[in-house]
Amino acid sequence: MARIFCDIRLSEEELRDLRERVAPHEVLVPEREAGFVLSVGEHDPAFLTANIVVGQPNVESVLTAPHLQWVQVTSAGITRYDTPEFRAAAEARGLTITNSSDVYAEACAEHVFAFMLAQARSLPRSISTITASKESAWSELRESCRPLKGGRVVILGYGFIAERLVEMLAPFHMEIVAMRRRARGNEAVPIVNGEALAAELGRADHVINILPDNKESRHFVSHDLLAKFRKGAIFYNIGRGATVDQDALVEALKSGQVGAAWLDVTEPEPLAVDHPLRGAPNCFITPHVAGGHQNEKQSLLAHFLANLRRFERGEALRNRVI
Amino acid sequence: MARIFCDIRLSEEELRDLRERVAPHEVLVPEREAGFVLSVGEHDPAFLTANIVVGQPNVESVLTAPHLQWVQVTSAGITRYDTPEFRAAAEARGLTITNSSDVYAEACAEHVFAFMLAQARSLPRSISTITASKESAWSELRESCRPLKGGRVVILGYGFIAERLVEMLAPFHMEIVAMRRRARGNEAVPIVNGEALAAELGRADHVINILPDNKESRHFVSHDLLAKFRKGAIFYNIGRGATVDQDALVEALKSGQVGAAWLDVTEPEPLAVDHPLRGAPNCFITPHVAGGHQNEKQSLLAHFLANLRRFERGEALRNRVI
Repeated sequence: MARIFCDIRLSEEELRDLRERVAPHEVLVPEREAGFVLSVGEHDPAFLTANIVVGQPNVESVLTAPHLQWVQVTSAGITRYDTPEFRAAAEARGLTITNSSDVYAEACAEHVFAFMLAQARSLPRSISTITASKESAWSELRESCRPLKGGRVVILGYGFIAERLVEMLAPFHMEIVAMRRRARGNEAVPIVNGEALAAELGRADHVINILPDNKESRHFVSHDLLAKFRKGAIFYNIGRGATVDQDALVEALKSGQVGAAWLDVTEPEPLAVDHPLRGAPNCFITPHVAGGHQNEKQSLLAHFLANLRRFERGEALRNRVI
Repeated sequence: MARIFCDIRLSEEELRDLRERVAPHEVLVPEREAGFVLSVGEHDPAFLTANIVVGQPNVESVLTAPHLQWVQVTSAGITRYDTPEFRAAAEARGLTITNSSDVYAEACAEHVFAFMLAQARSLPRSISTITASKESAWSELRESCRPLKGGRVVILGYGFIAERLVEMLAPFHMEIVAMRRRARGNEAVPIVNGEALAAELGRADHVINILPDNKESRHFVSHDLLAKFRKGAIFYNIGRGATVDQDALVEALKSGQVGAAWLDVTEPEPLAVDHPLRGAPNCFITPHVAGGHQNEKQSLLAHFLANLRRFERGEALRNRVI
């Protein structure tokens, strides 16, 4: 019988339901309410007795809890755990970390695909323009649309989201390559790094950033990287805000080096109302909602329960990251 | 040697280029400037000497011109020719009518797909909302997103655009059926009419109208048809505005019977600034730009030239409609 610490914010009914579904395992909850996503958890006495954690526990608690075997993080990003020190400590203790990519990959891939099609069809402009046949605004609007079909795509960061996005783009016959820190050989598209990446950026119509936030990725999308883009390429970010040098992006949008930017993540979140990115030309910002979808909490719990069954049977867990 | 009448509005350079490419055939142009799409052409003396027409000629001119063998219409819609009288007269004279669906199918399918994803990801709201984690507006926005994946779709009107849209939707594992006046047996999805259509409308998440404008389709999307929708279904129209009873649609949006409407076509175009549809809840209107794309005129001419080569060789023409 395992002791499962859960810091997902649940109603009494949801908690009762969870308890029934994991029985005979025990469910522990924090005494003080914690945030739902990417917040720092409480160093809770109950936590220290847990074997399994589902939620967003803080690193110190995880490394302190003596009985902990497995942590399932309720996000796709695992920034706070993604350090050499934590990886080494977790591996030394035989601690498994899984994330919730399966829950967010579909919504995230649909979100960036929605960005791509909205850009291709000039949607923000066309849903706010009243014009008609033969007016110059009408001809310009039509002419501003660029079919996705046959375009070139560079994806920065290849994981579950990129994998799903590549599937979605298949009917558009695009040329797609991706950058990945450590290629595993099972990727659906060619992996490029260094000089090969620079060459691909110089030809791409679309550059899609899905990079996680860690020491290596900080400001990866720099002034120098943006200068390698083909002039007028479209930039999308559904990874993490810290991976982009935002001042450099503002400059690139102003000069036309980047044709448009669609950002679901920024640094900080939300950006100040008067932040230069909000006023930059062709810059569209959504408030970190790419992974969001109806019944998200239920999806997270179902994903945890499916992994709990695997854990009970000693099988490999889904979305294992450490 | 054929005499080709062209009422596409061309620059001098474009006209010179066209003349070179069709030589030794002759290119005739109207003396008075005509509109580019769906306008009524001039009854031009040169027209009466033509064997081939590319553009938007008026019905009377077409039926009057004694040497005419083939008309290539520069739109996907062929409303003005789509009457039993015209069809009978054209067939009696051995006159072939082709349209330009190949040119518009890709852009139109991308446009309606952009609508679907923008709706799925609550894009109009999320690009205009400043909020962040833990705020109720943030949670509501995330919760308002409904993945396309696995949803049910009814397409009204199955032609080149629907065919391409069905290809695009393949990675989303949706259940798709279509209504078609005369099923041909080569459709990629099941064709439904009458009672079967009503049953499908009662289960669909998305109803996509691609109907052409003709006598049978006028106000096909009526109060009664909208009442058959599953409550909250999303309605899209990239066909023709006249196929929808707009008063009934306003009412359905107000009652929540239709969850949102995305319209590229209306009646008339543009709708008045104070038309009730513009103020209806969750109604998004683009100004008849679904088929528009960069270098459209060049695509139309290339499509005509490819058909001209087939015509010269006596082969079947692409996009033949009569």
